[in-house]
Amino acid sequence: MTQQKTWRIGVAGLGTVGAGLLTFLAEHPDFAPAGGKAVVTGVSARSRSRPRPFDISGLPWFDDPVALANSPQTDVFVELIGGSDGPAKAAVEAALSAGKPVVTANKALIAEHGAELAALAEAKGAPLLFEAAVMGGVPAVKMIREALVGDEIASVAGILNGTCNYILTEMEATGRSFAEVLAEAQRLGYAEADPTMDVGGFDAAHKISILAALAFGCAPNYAAAEIEGIAGVELLDIHLARDLGYRIKLVASADRSPDGVLVRVHPSLAPLSHPLAQAGGALNALFIEGRRIGRIFVQGPGAGAGPTAAAVAADIADVMTGAVRPVFQAPATSLAPFTPVDPSKSIGRAYLRLSVKDEPGVIAAVSETLAEAGVSIESFLQKPVENASGVPIVLTTHAVAESVLTAAIDRIAALPAVLDRPRLLRIAKI
Amino acid sequence: MTQQKTWRIGVAGLGTVGAGLLTFLAEHPDFAPAGGKAVVTGVSARSRSRPRPFDISGLPWFDDPVALANSPQTDVFVELIGGSDGPAKAAVEAALSAGKPVVTANKALIAEHGAELAALAEAKGAPLLFEAAVMGGVPAVKMIREALVGDEIASVAGILNGTCNYILTEMEATGRSFAEVLAEAQRLGYAEADPTMDVGGFDAAHKISILAALAFGCAPNYAAAEIEGIAGVELLDIHLARDLGYRIKLVASADRSPDGVLVRVHPSLAPLSHPLAQAGGALNALFIEGRRIGRIFVQGPGAGAGPTAAAVAADIADVMTGAVRPVFQAPATSLAPFTPVDPSKSIGRAYLRLSVKDEPGVIAAVSETLAEAGVSIESFLQKPVENASGVPIVLTTHAVAESVLTAAIDRIAALPAVLDRPRLLRIAKI
Repeated sequence: MTQQKTWRIGVAGLGTVGAGLLTFLAEHPDFAPAGGKAVVTGVSARSRSRPRPFDISGLPWFDDPVALANSPQTDVFVELIGGSDGPAKAAVEAALSAGKPVVTANKALIAEHGAELAALAEAKGAPLLFEAAVMGGVPAVKMIREALVGDEIASVAGILNGTCNYILTEMEATGRSFAEVLAEAQRLGYAEADPTMDVGGFDAAHKISILAALAFGCAPNYAAAEIEGIAGVELLDIHLARDLGYRIKLVASADRSPDGVLVRVHPSLAPLSHPLAQAGGALNALFIEGRRIGRIFVQGPGAGAGPTAAAVAADIADVMTGAVRPVFQAPATSLAPFTPVDPSKSIGRAYLRLSVKDEPGVIAAVSETLAEAGVSIESFLQKPVENASGVPIVLTTHAVAESVLTAAIDRIAALPAVLDRPRLLRIAKI
Repeated sequence: MTQQKTWRIGVAGLGTVGAGLLTFLAEHPDFAPAGGKAVVTGVSARSRSRPRPFDISGLPWFDDPVALANSPQTDVFVELIGGSDGPAKAAVEAALSAGKPVVTANKALIAEHGAELAALAEAKGAPLLFEAAVMGGVPAVKMIREALVGDEIASVAGILNGTCNYILTEMEATGRSFAEVLAEAQRLGYAEADPTMDVGGFDAAHKISILAALAFGCAPNYAAAEIEGIAGVELLDIHLARDLGYRIKLVASADRSPDGVLVRVHPSLAPLSHPLAQAGGALNALFIEGRRIGRIFVQGPGAGAGPTAAAVAADIADVMTGAVRPVFQAPATSLAPFTPVDPSKSIGRAYLRLSVKDEPGVIAAVSETLAEAGVSIESFLQKPVENASGVPIVLTTHAVAESVLTAAIDRIAALPAVLDRPRLLRIAKI
């Protein structure tokens, strides 16, 4: 055991997570999980004078995070700036180039530049750790990278964005619209002033891209992710899905097949009795399916200063152990190519909501059109809904290729009695 | 990255898990998760000639596992023999004394001798890893030891024995008795010929003792665990609990308070909507509650060749990384003393089932007695039950100290109209 070695930590970015980390380290001056000791020897942020819940006056200040990364007083560089490029990337590259271990919570950086950073880290023998980038305090990264290395993972799927999960949960619980709940979430600080990354599904896509790389030993490929956010989820769909025994969740999934990898983020229906459907509020939840291990489910708070700072602290502890392992499942030099699967070939069940004229023969026309297109109906529901323009009809299909489904939707949309393009939601493959 | 270093693995014990491990390594000759390569260079078991699902004729054979541990051809010793003492302990001690990393699935060994083995391992600088000892392929050990090191854990609680969970699930689903379901589980190979370790709660107690040590940084103290198995769980209680909105599970828990640590295994009532209640069949499930992280829930297959062998393989991978960290949460030389909490001071809610004479005034007598003893009733149910001797009355209490509850039960048992000693089940604190 390395006795009493001191690790000098440079922390760039003093927002929620940075504050949580400094608070943790201040409260635990004896934090020495692997026999060594962590001491913060430098900080950097956009504003030195901004009010903070802790005193940074005693800590060496760096205006430039790259200078902090390069400082001879920095042994381990902790990047909590955020953003896929710019100062975060420059500083991480500087630290790794100098052979310094890097701990980051930056999902965009890893999802978009993970392969090149991994190559740099491994060439320099410097760990690059990012537990806090996915699911906050739930150790999804460690589980997949380290604990399931003795298995072949077939798929990972889950709820990776707490803001979206909170909004969907509140919409169902209060009967308010997406816009109303989002506005409230912004007032309460649960959603950003610019909520695009969260509600657009991009944050979840960053995270699932990282998990896919870890699970399948391929380079992260955020650009290949198919992404749909929750801004288009209507209260009507939440209620109709519930009548059919489902709850709408923003599900991020990565599946490996002989054809390649499919990474997607979609509002999806999960059966009410399913653990994903029961993960409410700001919870995150994840299924990991492995050939040997079967299905593992893990759930917990996916964000927040406490959980995320604890994940950063755990990564710092890992650095202290001296462990050397590939950044992703395999060394960067031998990561499998990421072969994206054409989503249109993907097969799954679907939920379709139609708005139709209240006249005879409509249901027959819709069912015939679906049958002719090769789509088999599993369940069907017509319900009077107040204040609806047109009559809503909702149905679920048996498993069908997306290309077939899309063609069928085109044909249904063209029927004279159908008022709008049908709303498609996928039923989660869980 | 250590390039192409070969780690020579000696495997002692070739039962289900050993077979799973050898199969995995044979199927993955390129298993090199940290740049090194694992090669099995020796095996040991009780019988060399016993039929096995794989060929061991090409592997050097050792009659004595201690000789395998001491062999100069063994770099890493994998102990899959089982049992808290005897050859398993002797061989693990031999390997650690020689400074060799040890990977084991032996919960009894770690729960009963973990502190002394950790001291030996750390003195010799040899990792001692036991992911497979708890929850099979679910990385509970790694989560607590490594991922939650940046938090203070307050409690861990869950379902840690798949055999008991299977039996309780089948009893409810089929309406058969404990004895009938156990006999079937034995026929199907889900329960051992001698099921005492499982159904007596001892296996779960071994596991929760290990998790308590990891979570709280204290020495494992199996002897301090309060243990009750499921042999006394009656179908009547399963049905009555369900009527009250609960499901009976064998819950293992470890709680830390300023007074010390309380480790218990009891058949306990979990609300039907709770994830623990919904973990059916042979699943294992665990809640971890931390000060910063909040509540993490993880669920998966807790046993079986595939998951457990995958956990052993992951530990071998960890050895290859060269990571050095304490066996438990803190170095063996500075583990906190395990201060057991007196269970009689423990406060919780309870379920009581009484069998009473069918005569007027009984309910009044029971309620008065409870009130006088200081036990407050939360819910009350009297139901006609066929073929029951006496009339069953079931009630749940508000939170009460166990000592108060026990005294109240003594007084109720002494009432003339009460036919047997009331059946006490705890309501899980989850």
